[in-house]
Amino acid sequence: MTITITAFERSPDGGRGLSRDTRVRWALEEVGQPYEVRLVSFQAMKEPAHLAIHPFGQIPTYEEGGLALFETGAIVFHIAERHAGLLPFDPDARARAISWMFAAVNTVEPPVLELVTVKILEGDKPWAQERLPLVLERIRVRLRQLSARLGDAEWLDGAFSAGDLMMVSVLLRLRPSGLLDEFPELAAYVARGEARPAYQRAYAAQAAVAAAVREGG
Amino acid sequence: MTITITAFERSPDGGRGLSRDTRVRWALEEVGQPYEVRLVSFQAMKEPAHLAIHPFGQIPTYEEGGLALFETGAIVFHIAERHAGLLPFDPDARARAISWMFAAVNTVEPPVLELVTVKILEGDKPWAQERLPLVLERIRVRLRQLSARLGDAEWLDGAFSAGDLMMVSVLLRLRPSGLLDEFPELAAYVARGEARPAYQRAYAAQAAVAAAVREGG
Repeated sequence: MTITITAFERSPDGGRGLSRDTRVRWALEEVGQPYEVRLVSFQAMKEPAHLAIHPFGQIPTYEEGGLALFETGAIVFHIAERHAGLLPFDPDARARAISWMFAAVNTVEPPVLELVTVKILEGDKPWAQERLPLVLERIRVRLRQLSARLGDAEWLDGAFSAGDLMMVSVLLRLRPSGLLDEFPELAAYVARGEARPAYQRAYAAQAAVAAAVREGG
Repeated sequence: MTITITAFERSPDGGRGLSRDTRVRWALEEVGQPYEVRLVSFQAMKEPAHLAIHPFGQIPTYEEGGLALFETGAIVFHIAERHAGLLPFDPDARARAISWMFAAVNTVEPPVLELVTVKILEGDKPWAQERLPLVLERIRVRLRQLSARLGDAEWLDGAFSAGDLMMVSVLLRLRPSGLLDEFPELAAYVARGEARPAYQRAYAAQAAVAAAVREGG
């Protein structure tokens, strides 16, 4: 059955790999599953046809036969559960990898998203400049803890897993801020993720969409 | 094997059920698994013994034999995967329930956590009052979408699942703000969750810890 995912017709990041479809593309590349992409405009994302698949009007979604899924973490997990390569076979190691998936989206990503709030959503507000250091410090608390746990290990818990895929993807959002450079172990960890051939293919695929948009005007 | 979870020795909410151990207690009650609780002080949470189990120095954790897990969503999923009652047997319905688990923690909870930021962490800042309506509006966007999807259904997708357990738990954090009352379908949905006998037992157990602290001085 064909796997179809959705992605931004015009990604707000201009193809720098920060849109969440990159995480799903990466997972599909890691397990060697081909997929098709349906591009969705900002307007179409809020219309009934898309909302029927994604109640919050976002991308990515995942369709395969009669199954329609939303929410990046759930889609990556679904792929990891059905194909070898993203979750350990040992049940305890598998449960720990899933802990890291949830840690990425529920413990590390919320403070990271505050950076979007303070810089973009509230970038024109009088308090933006004064708030920024507070937001950065809350992110640093998490990065310090994550860095302490990772140490000089290659991945968070044994072999590369869907937990690393999600965590690296969340940390990548921090690169423009310079925060990653304060934590050399984490910067190296993210670089190891980006160096994976599957990530490279996923990145190239999403960048090609943005390039086509630019060329097409 | 005995299941041991951790909870706050002194919960910041004084036993109103908003600490995340309540979500794990609820899941264990739904599937009928007994558990023990190890209470952890704020100081002990940041010490090596606890950090070895929870890299971010939080509660709850889950220990069973040689397995140690952290991150509420992952713990609830682990419980749901091993015991009947929290995930549908049909593979597609199961994948959709997992979508709702991730939606609760990665799409709905981040704006809800901003309410803690604006009211508590930054409650004394000059911008707190002016920022509050912006934060509330971002939460309303998600509540509107969630309410539109739920409609007059009892649960998010068929029978009660771990997705509902997580979503109701996230929404419960909004009760003090009054926001839930603006969305009668969601308020009724949360009330249905709270009315479940398993939730009642979980709530009573965490409230008993807070009551013992108050009586013990």
